[in-house]
Amino acid sequence: MDYFMAPGRNHLFVPGPSNIPQKVMQALNRGNEDHRSPAFPVFSRQLLADVTRIFSTQSGTPFIIPTTGTGGWECAAVNTLSTGDRVLTFVFGQFSHLWSQQLQKLHFDVDAVQCQWGGGVDLGVLDSKLRADEEHRIKAVCVVHNETSTGININLGVVRAILDLNQHPALLLVDGVSSIGALAFRMDEWKVDVALTGSQKSLGLPTGLGILCASPKALEASKSARSPRGFFDWSAYLKSYELGSYWPYTPSIQLLYGLRAALDLLFEEGLENVIKRHHRLAHATRLAVKAWGLELCVKDPELYSDTVTAVVVPSYLNSTDVVRVAWRKYNLSIGIGLNKVAGKVFRIGHLGFLNELQLISALAGVEMALKDVGFPVKLGSGVAAAQAYLQESTPLIPSRL
Amino acid sequence: MDYFMAPGRNHLFVPGPSNIPQKVMQALNRGNEDHRSPAFPVFSRQLLADVTRIFSTQSGTPFIIPTTGTGGWECAAVNTLSTGDRVLTFVFGQFSHLWSQQLQKLHFDVDAVQCQWGGGVDLGVLDSKLRADEEHRIKAVCVVHNETSTGININLGVVRAILDLNQHPALLLVDGVSSIGALAFRMDEWKVDVALTGSQKSLGLPTGLGILCASPKALEASKSARSPRGFFDWSAYLKSYELGSYWPYTPSIQLLYGLRAALDLLFEEGLENVIKRHHRLAHATRLAVKAWGLELCVKDPELYSDTVTAVVVPSYLNSTDVVRVAWRKYNLSIGIGLNKVAGKVFRIGHLGFLNELQLISALAGVEMALKDVGFPVKLGSGVAAAQAYLQESTPLIPSRL
Amino acid sequence: MDYFMAPGRNHLFVPGPSNIPQKVMQALNRGNEDHRSPAFPVFSRQLLADVTRIFSTQSGTPFIIPTTGTGGWECAAVNTLSTGDRVLTFVFGQFSHLWSQQLQKLHFDVDAVQCQWGGGVDLGVLDSKLRADEEHRIKAVCVVHNETSTGININLGVVRAILDLNQHPALLLVDGVSSIGALAFRMDEWKVDVALTGSQKSLGLPTGLGILCASPKALEASKSARSPRGFFDWSAYLKSYELGSYWPYTPSIQLLYGLRAALDLLFEEGLENVIKRHHRLAHATRLAVKAWGLELCVKDPELYSDTVTAVVVPSYLNSTDVVRVAWRKYNLSIGIGLNKVAGKVFRIGHLGFLNELQLISALAGVEMALKDVGFPVKLGSGVAAAQAYLQESTPLIPSRL
Amino acid sequence: MDYFMAPGRNHLFVPGPSNIPQKVMQALNRGNEDHRSPAFPVFSRQLLADVTRIFSTQSGTPFIIPTTGTGGWECAAVNTLSTGDRVLTFVFGQFSHLWSQQLQKLHFDVDAVQCQWGGGVDLGVLDSKLRADEEHRIKAVCVVHNETSTGININLGVVRAILDLNQHPALLLVDGVSSIGALAFRMDEWKVDVALTGSQKSLGLPTGLGILCASPKALEASKSARSPRGFFDWSAYLKSYELGSYWPYTPSIQLLYGLRAALDLLFEEGLENVIKRHHRLAHATRLAVKAWGLELCVKDPELYSDTVTAVVVPSYLNSTDVVRVAWRKYNLSIGIGLNKVAGKVFRIGHLGFLNELQLISALAGVEMALKDVGFPVKLGSGVAAAQAYLQESTPLIPSRL
Repeated sequence: MDYFMAPGRNHLFVPGPSNIPQKVMQALNRGNEDHRSPAFPVFSRQLLADVTRIFSTQSGTPFIIPTTGTGGWECAAVNTLSTGDRVLTFVFGQFSHLWSQQLQKLHFDVDAVQCQWGGGVDLGVLDSKLRADEEHRIKAVCVVHNETSTGININLGVVRAILDLNQHPALLLVDGVSSIGALAFRMDEWKVDVALTGSQKSLGLPTGLGILCASPKALEASKSARSPRGFFDWSAYLKSYELGSYWPYTPSIQLLYGLRAALDLLFEEGLENVIKRHHRLAHATRLAVKAWGLELCVKDPELYSDTVTAVVVPSYLNSTDVVRVAWRKYNLSIGIGLNKVAGKVFRIGHLGFLNELQLISALAGVEMALKDVGFPVKLGSGVAAAQAYLQESTPLIPSRL
Repeated sequence: MDYFMAPGRNHLFVPGPSNIPQKVMQALNRGNEDHRSPAFPVFSRQLLADVTRIFSTQSGTPFIIPTTGTGGWECAAVNTLSTGDRVLTFVFGQFSHLWSQQLQKLHFDVDAVQCQWGGGVDLGVLDSKLRADEEHRIKAVCVVHNETSTGININLGVVRAILDLNQHPALLLVDGVSSIGALAFRMDEWKVDVALTGSQKSLGLPTGLGILCASPKALEASKSARSPRGFFDWSAYLKSYELGSYWPYTPSIQLLYGLRAALDLLFEEGLENVIKRHHRLAHATRLAVKAWGLELCVKDPELYSDTVTAVVVPSYLNSTDVVRVAWRKYNLSIGIGLNKVAGKVFRIGHLGFLNELQLISALAGVEMALKDVGFPVKLGSGVAAAQAYLQESTPLIPSRL
Repeated sequence: MDYFMAPGRNHLFVPGPSNIPQKVMQALNRGNEDHRSPAFPVFSRQLLADVTRIFSTQSGTPFIIPTTGTGGWECAAVNTLSTGDRVLTFVFGQFSHLWSQQLQKLHFDVDAVQCQWGGGVDLGVLDSKLRADEEHRIKAVCVVHNETSTGININLGVVRAILDLNQHPALLLVDGVSSIGALAFRMDEWKVDVALTGSQKSLGLPTGLGILCASPKALEASKSARSPRGFFDWSAYLKSYELGSYWPYTPSIQLLYGLRAALDLLFEEGLENVIKRHHRLAHATRLAVKAWGLELCVKDPELYSDTVTAVVVPSYLNSTDVVRVAWRKYNLSIGIGLNKVAGKVFRIGHLGFLNELQLISALAGVEMALKDVGFPVKLGSGVAAAQAYLQESTPLIPSRL
Repeated sequence: MDYFMAPGRNHLFVPGPSNIPQKVMQALNRGNEDHRSPAFPVFSRQLLADVTRIFSTQSGTPFIIPTTGTGGWECAAVNTLSTGDRVLTFVFGQFSHLWSQQLQKLHFDVDAVQCQWGGGVDLGVLDSKLRADEEHRIKAVCVVHNETSTGININLGVVRAILDLNQHPALLLVDGVSSIGALAFRMDEWKVDVALTGSQKSLGLPTGLGILCASPKALEASKSARSPRGFFDWSAYLKSYELGSYWPYTPSIQLLYGLRAALDLLFEEGLENVIKRHHRLAHATRLAVKAWGLELCVKDPELYSDTVTAVVVPSYLNSTDVVRVAWRKYNLSIGIGLNKVAGKVFRIGHLGFLNELQLISALAGVEMALKDVGFPVKLGSGVAAAQAYLQESTPLIPSRL
């Protein structure tokens, strides 16, 4: 069943799916059970309460749907909008592109602002569009918080400020698939109306859960929203919450127990420490890239993502070759460039339950793969740059003081 | 994390989720991996080819979606129909009810034929509706093959015959959630246009896969169908098939490896033997019910389901009490009555990777629970009836001859 | 890798190895780690403290050895005795026979009292041997607490009383392999000097741990005992305890975590409840045997074992045939007769993490297998007898009240 | 249950226990079963046949004992020797010391030749001892093939040559715990009489199996050897082999299935390739040590071990501090110095199912830990040296060509 056997561990550094912690593996290793027993609701109530913590929200209502991030996009839109509603999107990478495209397929009136890949939301355009929209025909602004294809992290506080400045009532729908649980995400502070993530990213689970949080305003909107919706319909979930049964149809039992274990790990480490760790690993990665003499896809340091780094290769190289040799020779999985940046960038995912030495194995592997494809990198240069920073900045593991 | 500990094994006899075979548990017990590596498509291609075998189709195109049966319903409809299309549904239990209701929520023009719960599709009405529909406004006939809430198994051959007799071009969409992989299902012979199942039923997997097969006619319909669809859109899958990448977004990797193991088990036992085993267990269950002096929810033997048995309790009892005591005293999980038959029936699921002695533990537990709630059952009566039949009819395990 | 596939669960009712609880399976599902890290001793210290509880001892010193029950026998003897020492053993079944034989192979001067298989320790002989031994040449009395081959449970209180009556200083070495953790075992009260069990019996673990407890008198004896010993030497363990490293050589890390989980389950259920549950299941089994019209191997009700029942078949039958057909037709694993009772008895193990309905599946399977081999059993008779008792006597599961 | 949580993976580079491959983890994740069923012998026969391949023997008889390497030592000696027999041992590290000590505790007449720690067997002494032993009182020569405490690999071909040169009939007993399955081991060619290993080293299993192979000469010796022996007695195994039951007492079922998976991985990679991979990783490690400006414990390149590297720290440092900070800050587990080299060396284990980038993470972590404790290492220097060699010498993974 395992084609392509290779000795030793696969080094998984795609920007999702990420590595599954052992405790989560153990939690997943369980049989099926009757989710209609009296036991499961008790478990579910606490889980739903706890999952809101990774969104930093007191007022949000969580939904854990047996789907993926792609399903999460649809879930956010169809519950809060009506067919034909105007939505404003910003396309600055593959995932913001795909979400925007999906909204079109779902028959919304999508105003897709094409931005530079490698840059972020064009804030000037956002401001002018909102200002011009005196009739408030824009019902939602959709923003990808962390664009996984280019390694861009958007400042949502500024997006919110522009909405507020224009006193615009549009809903703010946010894809936090590669940010929530790894980067600071402040749903209440930023007044995000729907935020969503997937299980296989910073939570370190298998694919299969789309996790959303809806603001009171979003819930209110869902009452009048007239998009056709069945599987993704919040109202069935809300009814289950009231009944205390929690699940309108069979949930992914194992993944929910896995989510419990994943949250426990996050809380045990401390969300603030998790965020700091992601920054530490990301900064080390960027130092390595600089040492190699390569450029990041993202130019503006304000936009640096702490979960994924997209690296531009010189024009005489094809980035896909780097990815291929890394996998074929070193059992290292990194991400290829997608769409507009195909062949031009490769991506190192550094999110989830990951530590310093794991990252270094990836950086070392990238270095060697770069040399393999003919880039004149000095072996050890990037690793040394990362080590210097990490040796200084890594704290002792608190449980081991 | 495990509230409600009880010594020994939970006896899981709800009609899904079902017991997970050890080999499937082992297959599931794996880390994440990059589904964009060269290895995963090789694995996926074979899996997609093999999964069609449980549908008995040569011409069907499979889709394995990270969703549930409820998502599978939506997937079947939105890909083949346009908003406002008329669909004919038959409601004879909770799941046919829910599907019908979902189709309404998806903005189809649903003609829902209310049938008796405990009976099946009203074939006369089907015939007259089709005959009357000279303009062919009915675009699809939706049938639940096996109604899990009442233990009804519909003869799809007859449904097809009536469609053919009326030379009606409506698509035939079939929910095979609690039948496919356990009961005879002949997609090509019955000219089913979309058939669907979920992973947590006869396949013995966790929840999380909606597995569909589309006929060439359904694929053709999907080209012109204008329902809004994003996550469930077949065209993204079909494009991935052409590209050889197979998955338009991150799939449920572990579940796919689990599905591989589940199919291997089915094929090793032989689908014909699997079907015979389900019949054997179901027949034994019905003999036990008769010995207890209770009635089945289903009256017509032609409609007996071989995957789930719904048992009617006397009017002076509440079936929910039987279910509750079974769980609280014997760690036995059986299904409650839903909706119209709430309090009136309890349900024994006997589907999936299950053998004779497992069934007997459930029958014994039901007997004892019946006595606990005050029904004057003779302990051992149902078990003995089942044993007599099973001792006669069970073959030696072929691998152990 | 799995020859002999069969649909559904294997019904494991040999008297060990027993069924592994799901929580133990999860605990076992972990990678290797450095047992010399600061973390492992912290874990080990608590585990060693807690494991003594299943022996009911305050004064005993535990040893958890990476071996089996057979190794445990050797460990008990070589640490407390010198080559050539006289030991008194009682042979009343296969395991008391094997232990006695092992002691001979280890060059002790074994006085093996041959007792009736199906009876217990000949107490009269014990008394007379001790009385006659004025010089106290007998250094140890070795008793199998629960003889797994015949289903005999020895009253150790009486054995102790006879030792005391004779004021005999011999050590009392006890095999509790199929009793400790399932039956009442009172090491301190009975002044047992070494008690031992294995991991794969009532603890529900894989094979691989020999778990011993030594009284202060046994520890004292070990200082002067001059049997050659290396792997099994307590002194290396005791030195590790003092050093706080706990393990003189690499331990079975996964099994130790599994033992932690197994103990937690026992403590959560409550040892008294565990013992009551074993009695309940055993009594139900004996009622079934009676209903079948068969005899137990054990005649004296005072000797009934609550962990295993050996059933005598009529002389015209071969008990091995019953075992064979149970496995070949029903995927039921029960124990064959061993040595003197080969062909004459089969054995039902009912120990470990097991509940009422699991037991009934075994009883039903045995009934059917008996019929298969030509014994004129009334199907359902034994099951009904067991059900009647269990329905009355089984309490609600405390966590589910 | 998990004290000392740390984010990310534990980097396990002690010289055993080693990392468990995912396929082995899956194989281990199984319930108990009846090892007396007809299925288990079929499985066992093939396993026993295949396990001999890692010893490179056609004539050896395998024994798989539920014990550890320490038990394996005892098993080798007590089966082939009689109490009081003279055995010649060579002590050049902690494990050769412990074996020698154990042989004394087992009442053999041990002539322990104290050699330099960091050197190997004193071949001159071996030769002179054998030559002087005209009466052939030396019954066995015991050699540790790979001394895990100092990183020494002994040339057994030379040891054999010296035995042959002296026409000495002593048995050659070899501890291959940290060599067999990772380094070339040619039992037949070297005329090794008993070779032994443990499951938790190059095989990548949990602790719990002592795996031995006995030459025909060793088997012959076991017939007349008069050491007391019970648990470890080969004759009980040999009898089981004849009977086709294969196991004289309950074996470690899960570990045996795990061993099956481990062997399959070794055979799939190819033993020659496994050996080459170990050499590649070891050579890279030594290049890193050199780049750091540190010395190996072993001086003679002929003695370099390809499974473990012991590194000497400058006299102003305590090697235990390096190990401690590696674990406390980087979640890296490396080995401390033992006994005579305590505080002076630390050890990097590089055996088992391991690849290039895994090794680099360890080398990077050691570098950083060295800096943490005040050694003036240039960060990246050792890693770069290793990378340069590995980038050149690592072949493409054959299954991914």
